[in-house]
Amino acid sequence: MQLAEYIDSKRQQHLNELLEFLSIPSVSTKSEHKADIQRAAEWVANALRRAGFEKVEIVPTAGHPVVFAEWTGAPGKPTVLLYGHYDVQPPEPLELWTSPPFQGTVRNGNLYGRGTADDKGQVHIHLKALEALMEHEGRLPVNVKVMIEGEEETGSTNLWNFVEKFRDRLKADALVVSDTSMLAKGVPSVTYGLRGLNYYQIEITGPAQDLHSGVFGGPAPNPLRILCELFAKLHDRNNRVAIPGFYRDVAPLSRKERKALNALPWSKKEFLKTVGAKGPGYVPEKGYSIIEQLWCRPTLELNGIWGGYTGPGTKTLLPHEVRAKMDVRLVPDMEPDRVKACLLAHLRAIGREDLEVRFEEGYPPAGTSVGAPVVQALIRALRSLGYEPEIWPRLAGSAPVYLFTRVLGQPFAMGGLGHGGRAHSPNEYATVEGMRLFARSVARFLEEFSLG
Amino acid sequence: MQLAEYIDSKRQQHLNELLEFLSIPSVSTKSEHKADIQRAAEWVANALRRAGFEKVEIVPTAGHPVVFAEWTGAPGKPTVLLYGHYDVQPPEPLELWTSPPFQGTVRNGNLYGRGTADDKGQVHIHLKALEALMEHEGRLPVNVKVMIEGEEETGSTNLWNFVEKFRDRLKADALVVSDTSMLAKGVPSVTYGLRGLNYYQIEITGPAQDLHSGVFGGPAPNPLRILCELFAKLHDRNNRVAIPGFYRDVAPLSRKERKALNALPWSKKEFLKTVGAKGPGYVPEKGYSIIEQLWCRPTLELNGIWGGYTGPGTKTLLPHEVRAKMDVRLVPDMEPDRVKACLLAHLRAIGREDLEVRFEEGYPPAGTSVGAPVVQALIRALRSLGYEPEIWPRLAGSAPVYLFTRVLGQPFAMGGLGHGGRAHSPNEYATVEGMRLFARSVARFLEEFSLG
Repeated sequence: MQLAEYIDSKRQQHLNELLEFLSIPSVSTKSEHKADIQRAAEWVANALRRAGFEKVEIVPTAGHPVVFAEWTGAPGKPTVLLYGHYDVQPPEPLELWTSPPFQGTVRNGNLYGRGTADDKGQVHIHLKALEALMEHEGRLPVNVKVMIEGEEETGSTNLWNFVEKFRDRLKADALVVSDTSMLAKGVPSVTYGLRGLNYYQIEITGPAQDLHSGVFGGPAPNPLRILCELFAKLHDRNNRVAIPGFYRDVAPLSRKERKALNALPWSKKEFLKTVGAKGPGYVPEKGYSIIEQLWCRPTLELNGIWGGYTGPGTKTLLPHEVRAKMDVRLVPDMEPDRVKACLLAHLRAIGREDLEVRFEEGYPPAGTSVGAPVVQALIRALRSLGYEPEIWPRLAGSAPVYLFTRVLGQPFAMGGLGHGGRAHSPNEYATVEGMRLFARSVARFLEEFSLG
Repeated sequence: MQLAEYIDSKRQQHLNELLEFLSIPSVSTKSEHKADIQRAAEWVANALRRAGFEKVEIVPTAGHPVVFAEWTGAPGKPTVLLYGHYDVQPPEPLELWTSPPFQGTVRNGNLYGRGTADDKGQVHIHLKALEALMEHEGRLPVNVKVMIEGEEETGSTNLWNFVEKFRDRLKADALVVSDTSMLAKGVPSVTYGLRGLNYYQIEITGPAQDLHSGVFGGPAPNPLRILCELFAKLHDRNNRVAIPGFYRDVAPLSRKERKALNALPWSKKEFLKTVGAKGPGYVPEKGYSIIEQLWCRPTLELNGIWGGYTGPGTKTLLPHEVRAKMDVRLVPDMEPDRVKACLLAHLRAIGREDLEVRFEEGYPPAGTSVGAPVVQALIRALRSLGYEPEIWPRLAGSAPVYLFTRVLGQPFAMGGLGHGGRAHSPNEYATVEGMRLFARSVARFLEEFSLG
């Protein structure tokens, strides 16, 4: 039996194990899930032991633990560091899920559940590919280090300290990031660039307490109005971010990169269908196509606003305060600290003294050369399975990959044959067939990477 | 013993009864308080029976009941209709109350509790003044009709039908509105104008569901941003409402009225202290003083906004939708329907098709002549108690008094010696001394009104 067939024969067992993993509500943003986080870390550690890793550690941090494991039985062969995360986004709003978020459910060839597409599904498939290689071949084709963290969805706050502390043991020739998905069903991709993130909470206070809007309305300051007027000034008419200095360090896209991007088999129709807006489905940034905007341009988006009376019926008040959450996506060569400084200076200039900005998290973008052996090995692996992968210089999403590219100097790649969607949204899913192909592609990649 | 002394001698008993009334959480906006609303209506009916009213009815409506009572034992004398409400605003945010909102508590000469200043305190004092007159004099100096409703805080939705149905029985020479307070401690006021109200809920939808802000941010429409950009266009640089036609029907203030208003013993320092903002304490409307703005100008205020992720930590999403509540205060001669049409046309013109506006409630402003006997009787009553009242042509707050002025053709007045504050806010209160004086002034007014 070939390795690929061996992997296929284990399909049902792999799915059952994943259902177990998905059932742990390891929501890292909420403190009431601390015990679930611990259980998820232990689940990963056990899966690594089952896969044949002898040295498996659950490393405590100031926040949630990192699971670290090594297999160094291939002397003379390159070493790959595999990164993923076992934490998930909150499942809310619950009422929009067709099946319970922490009870994985297969419908029409898709597995639905929080974490299926981000990132438990991918972590699980990587571990199963390693396990199959070990069982079928008795060994792995390269040395493998595995690091699965529990704080990706809260900005990987404590990963920096972990990386500093484990710097020597994390040494590897390349990094593979599990946290990805295919461009579309049947269209695998290879990515070697990621955007960075700045996350803020803005707080505006008005009156010392809620006031009667009929008695104080008009002259008394209304924080809701102040917020709206402030945020309306963060984009200009061309839908560019209107913060002086914001674009200064953005590395321009080459003509070649833009041509390649716009030639991707990406469908505007599919995009508009997924967005599903009643009004115009997109907000163009002048001078860029939607796909350029999505993957190569920095953005500033409000994630939430809450303040004043939000209950049923009517209440006539001037609220005491309003809060908002906002994220900024960074592209090469933007630096989080510099962007933060620009944003703060702008808000101070156009805003008021009753404004507070809390910086929640941030990390810079990351990028590798397309010629790096890890990128080329992934491309060869997908081709040998009969797919011509799309090559993406950058990806819309963000991950703390900069830690590895900057601190450890590792080139990185991400990609494969998995397919899913609705990460961070209700009804998150992965296709069952995509998971089978993904496991194959991971095993194939490790074999290709062993060739250098 | 004089009537005033008789009222004073009952002070403790009156306070105890009020504590009982305050303890009923008759929050009209929330359906879970339906039984409390019923209890509050029954409490009022019993208080009216105790005061000597023989015909007392709890009249059901499509919403909350109206308590109606008549005493017609003064043939040949004028008839006064007393209006008030037994429902209260929601007490939230609870954590800002020093003592529980539905457990009236006396501290430093003030009685704290939801409803003390709006409007249970005033309703109670009116009933106690009537009871004292009846007990001390054996009769009332004028015919009295009493109507206490349970939907004032939700826009008096069903009062219209009630007034239509009871049109004949509501006939009176004048209306007295209990829902008021003094300008400041020791500065009684007489008001004969009220602003009207339009209340809206705005709903903006973006993507069909929450999306990952890293994967869709930039081109996909963000309803939070759309909302901010829309609301930023509702006021201009001079802090006037920027809706075409909004001010068209506003009756100009005469030079005399403005002079009188600005000469009031109103303190900007006190206003700024109450507002207690960290930033600038007021937002001037060009061409008007703060007091003119507060009492004589229409306003548009946001009361609440909610949408997207509002929990702890970070969640990177583009939200599906955002909602906001907004009130507009109307002054003579603005018409709610016309203002609503202007607002909708403007939102449609500057907004998008993914915008929905729900009109929650509305009623026009109301006004009476200063020469009306009811206004003059109130002025004489206050003077006879040693106070020189301030005369206000209009009041900042709103009440459905238009029903009486327009439908029944009744002149109206409100005022007296009560003093309290923080209506609709945490730590709402009335002064104990103010309540004593208020009861005296009500009895005195009825005597003055009997003189025509």
